[in-house]
Amino acid sequence: MSGKDNLTAVLYGIEDLRLEQRPIPTPKDDEVLLEMDSVGICGSDVHYLVNGRIGDFVVRKPMVIGHEASGIVAKVGSRVHNVRVGDRVAIEPGYGCRVCDYCKGGRYNLCPEMIFCATPPYDGNLTRYYTHPADFCYKLPDHSRTAPERLDVAKELGADGTLVVERGADEQDVVKKVHALFGGHAPDKTIDCSGAEATSRLSVLATRSGGCAVLVGMGPAEIKLPLVNALSREVDIRGVFRYCNDYPGALSLVASGKINVKRLITHHFNIEETAEAFNTSRHGLGGAIKVMIHVQPKDKNNPK
Amino acid sequence: MSGKDNLTAVLYGIEDLRLEQRPIPTPKDDEVLLEMDSVGICGSDVHYLVNGRIGDFVVRKPMVIGHEASGIVAKVGSRVHNVRVGDRVAIEPGYGCRVCDYCKGGRYNLCPEMIFCATPPYDGNLTRYYTHPADFCYKLPDHSRTAPERLDVAKELGADGTLVVERGADEQDVVKKVHALFGGHAPDKTIDCSGAEATSRLSVLATRSGGCAVLVGMGPAEIKLPLVNALSREVDIRGVFRYCNDYPGALSLVASGKINVKRLITHHFNIEETAEAFNTSRHGLGGAIKVMIHVQPKDKNNPK
Amino acid sequence: MSGKDNLTAVLYGIEDLRLEQRPIPTPKDDEVLLEMDSVGICGSDVHYLVNGRIGDFVVRKPMVIGHEASGIVAKVGSRVHNVRVGDRVAIEPGYGCRVCDYCKGGRYNLCPEMIFCATPPYDGNLTRYYTHPADFCYKLPDHSRTAPERLDVAKELGADGTLVVERGADEQDVVKKVHALFGGHAPDKTIDCSGAEATSRLSVLATRSGGCAVLVGMGPAEIKLPLVNALSREVDIRGVFRYCNDYPGALSLVASGKINVKRLITHHFNIEETAEAFNTSRHGLGGAIKVMIHVQPKDKNNPK
Amino acid sequence: MSGKDNLTAVLYGIEDLRLEQRPIPTPKDDEVLLEMDSVGICGSDVHYLVNGRIGDFVVRKPMVIGHEASGIVAKVGSRVHNVRVGDRVAIEPGYGCRVCDYCKGGRYNLCPEMIFCATPPYDGNLTRYYTHPADFCYKLPDHSRTAPERLDVAKELGADGTLVVERGADEQDVVKKVHALFGGHAPDKTIDCSGAEATSRLSVLATRSGGCAVLVGMGPAEIKLPLVNALSREVDIRGVFRYCNDYPGALSLVASGKINVKRLITHHFNIEETAEAFNTSRHGLGGAIKVMIHVQPKDKNNPK
Repeated sequence: MSGKDNLTAVLYGIEDLRLEQRPIPTPKDDEVLLEMDSVGICGSDVHYLVNGRIGDFVVRKPMVIGHEASGIVAKVGSRVHNVRVGDRVAIEPGYGCRVCDYCKGGRYNLCPEMIFCATPPYDGNLTRYYTHPADFCYKLPDHSRTAPERLDVAKELGADGTLVVERGADEQDVVKKVHALFGGHAPDKTIDCSGAEATSRLSVLATRSGGCAVLVGMGPAEIKLPLVNALSREVDIRGVFRYCNDYPGALSLVASGKINVKRLITHHFNIEETAEAFNTSRHGLGGAIKVMIHVQPKDKNNPK
Repeated sequence: MSGKDNLTAVLYGIEDLRLEQRPIPTPKDDEVLLEMDSVGICGSDVHYLVNGRIGDFVVRKPMVIGHEASGIVAKVGSRVHNVRVGDRVAIEPGYGCRVCDYCKGGRYNLCPEMIFCATPPYDGNLTRYYTHPADFCYKLPDHSRTAPERLDVAKELGADGTLVVERGADEQDVVKKVHALFGGHAPDKTIDCSGAEATSRLSVLATRSGGCAVLVGMGPAEIKLPLVNALSREVDIRGVFRYCNDYPGALSLVASGKINVKRLITHHFNIEETAEAFNTSRHGLGGAIKVMIHVQPKDKNNPK
Repeated sequence: MSGKDNLTAVLYGIEDLRLEQRPIPTPKDDEVLLEMDSVGICGSDVHYLVNGRIGDFVVRKPMVIGHEASGIVAKVGSRVHNVRVGDRVAIEPGYGCRVCDYCKGGRYNLCPEMIFCATPPYDGNLTRYYTHPADFCYKLPDHSRTAPERLDVAKELGADGTLVVERGADEQDVVKKVHALFGGHAPDKTIDCSGAEATSRLSVLATRSGGCAVLVGMGPAEIKLPLVNALSREVDIRGVFRYCNDYPGALSLVASGKINVKRLITHHFNIEETAEAFNTSRHGLGGAIKVMIHVQPKDKNNPK
Repeated sequence: MSGKDNLTAVLYGIEDLRLEQRPIPTPKDDEVLLEMDSVGICGSDVHYLVNGRIGDFVVRKPMVIGHEASGIVAKVGSRVHNVRVGDRVAIEPGYGCRVCDYCKGGRYNLCPEMIFCATPPYDGNLTRYYTHPADFCYKLPDHSRTAPERLDVAKELGADGTLVVERGADEQDVVKKVHALFGGHAPDKTIDCSGAEATSRLSVLATRSGGCAVLVGMGPAEIKLPLVNALSREVDIRGVFRYCNDYPGALSLVASGKINVKRLITHHFNIEETAEAFNTSRHGLGGAIKVMIHVQPKDKNNPK
């Protein structure tokens, strides 16, 4: 495939995202070469574009962007058994060193040597050809790929209730409203996916005594938390860092048809339109939830 | 026992602690009457004496102080089977309503109707005769009651290492020093028993990724926590509220002789010296760690 | 209500089930008087009728039968707060002593002093008026009570797959068929609700390495288990004894409308037809799954 | 080291164990070459010598015996960082494929492709030079290597009580005696390391309701277990298969000086005396508990 086109989106610095040709890589024994299909834009991709860094991770040299990706297996290394050429796969973007205590203990997301796509200094995969360890590629279920529609997404996807919190609302009032959504009961577990100080606090305050507040979204490095409230009611505060042994179960759920993740994809672009795609995601244009970039040339397998 | 002396320490308000006679109570069917032996002074007792309140718990009427207590069973109710007259028992100071979800689920310390000694509006047990539910009285192991000495307590009781943190020390330096105590490794679990903002933060920062920081001590209602550090390293933050199913195991440990809790008791007083006892505890006079008040008349069973 | 009718089904011994009048009981402070509505027939009820005993539990004196029951609160004791007169409630049939380690630890189903309806020497509740501790009565969701139909129940209620095992089938073949139902994968957890030796073994053998086989049904006291298979694949073998903190969650599921337990009720009888009801249940007449007995007089609130 | 001596103990078949020279292997990038120090004889080694197989694992071609081993790092591969030349290390004998769900999930002992020393078809390490993945070698604590003595080992090593069970003793009597050892209480957890039917049963029967019986030893493939007793008392039955993330913690315990594992080693032999060593272990000669074989020539580092 040496003669083929390998258009790639590379971040050179703040507000400096370029499309360029890169050589097609060769897979190692335990890797696969992937003909990439589509790559979603994540909040962290936009963050790197706008700020050039996330915390201690700084873009110091040109970095291929993108890490929410799927592709088709084009070539397999000599020791690969879990997938074969032609398989459509989801790509788990981070993997550990495989030899430290965390990796051997099954919590590879905490590996201090972790390699994670589009987290400096590692390249991402918004590109047409890309290699990845085979065991972090997971076969996708066979689904027809149908057109998305306008939606009142959350309700449609299964949320039992929704609540819009007004800016400046009294914290205790909001807690009562959350409990009212559950018939007057406090939830056993809450998950805050925003990371804003107000919602992290709300998550703790609204949880049932003895329950658990999982703070998935991350915002400011330091937050003023209602700690005595949490401790005296034994509400555990937990974090979830990236992914760890999650892909097989998640794909199983999608395959079962019980959840419809496509409803979350609101916009499609080609790789040539990467700048526009980032703009749509960054400013939430047209009600954007998840923006998807298709990386192969149009006349091939891009259904747009 | 109606004619007997029942000297009792009653808190009337801020800095107003009085000794007075109270009638000897009669146990209900599931209760025991206890001839009290000794009562330790807890930080919360001192807090009520000095401030008249702890958070939302306000001393609005005279309250018997004391809740870290032991006694001898003097009478048992008709349905009591676990202890008998003459047994020396430790008294777990709080018990729930026994019918709510928390009580039935084994987490009675979270019962919203909990009765807890010397927490307004409930009386404590720094008194000579006191009734308590029999199932929250636990037989004490038989030990000879030897004289305490001066001590370098923590090391002697089994701490692998100790570290004095200078005021104003750099947080990251302290974390490194803590890790050095563990041979360069971060501890899996840390327990902060102080509740100061600095130690709660240290507890989170020093814990191994994927570990757990248990914040037992409670300080200011709101604390600025290094949340992204905790979440991105999956360090769980947990509280422990009061006691729950802990007494049997703790007494078992003491009975085994493997831990020597007596080393923690540095001062002994009679109930008539309650004011002096509180003063010693409050200001840490004479290296006070735990101050104990013996409530029976001297010529009886007080070994002081 | 002293003048009222309190028809009651009493088991006098093997194959000797009688209907007789009993006095209407008076609730204690923490109890409610229930006007009973319906009582399901359980396998253990039939077992007592046929054998007069289950293991060490022997019917030595006349015992009211029945323990799967619901009713309407007719009177509440002075300390009852969780329900009120007129509430329709499900009745959890067993409760502990509330003072032993198991009860205080939240595993009251293991209490050695447990009182369980229709387990000798305790009476059950196939009767028109019955008293029960209020905290073991749970408000029922408001549902219209629709007529049941014939059904292919398991599939309809959500089973992903079903398999009929031929008598004498090869064990390893059956394991393969079970895995085939899950797309070639072994299930993480299996639940055997039958208690037959063959299904208990199958449950262990079919579970994924590192998974858990929960054996709910109980059969012969001793079973020949493939122990090395279980141990060397770290398949845990667990039991579940009766109920413990399950009613609130179960009723919540029913109230959500996500599961339709009515489909399991195939037959309805009046209390006067108790003998016929037991006969139907015992021999599985008319495709009987769960047989329900309505205990109030027909002209009142029995929808049959 | 090509010219060096590499004496190796090879099992050719039933009762056919030979000493022969083998070439010294070369470590791969992630491996170390070990100058072996000592190798303990395990029950499974003796089992292969006597029976030529364990269950489905059959010795079909000559196999190096031995898997309980320690050595000194003689050479490291290019990607090895956790140990260096000269380090004394314990060798965890089994490791997984590193890419399957079990390996990535931290339960590599359940990996279906596991490589385990001296389990056919894989060679063991009773040899003078041996290569092994570096991350499954763990630095040993520095301890003086003191002479062992006769001992009443169990008590000395911390057992609170011991009990000799007479052959043919009544099962319920033995359970009572076990409980008596714990002051009349049933233990929360029991661990059966024998695998005999009688002790596996005892383990289940003696455990406290709600507790856990861990069956580590494995005996006959099928055992008659008191299943209703276990299920109705919610005693979980669990297996532990080989090792998984255990070495670091175990070595930490030894390093702390809190346990003295040397007391378990009763006999020492040189590799040239392998036959005698096996004989001692197999027949428990001279009160043998653990028999150790030192593999380097005497004049070097064998302290015998």
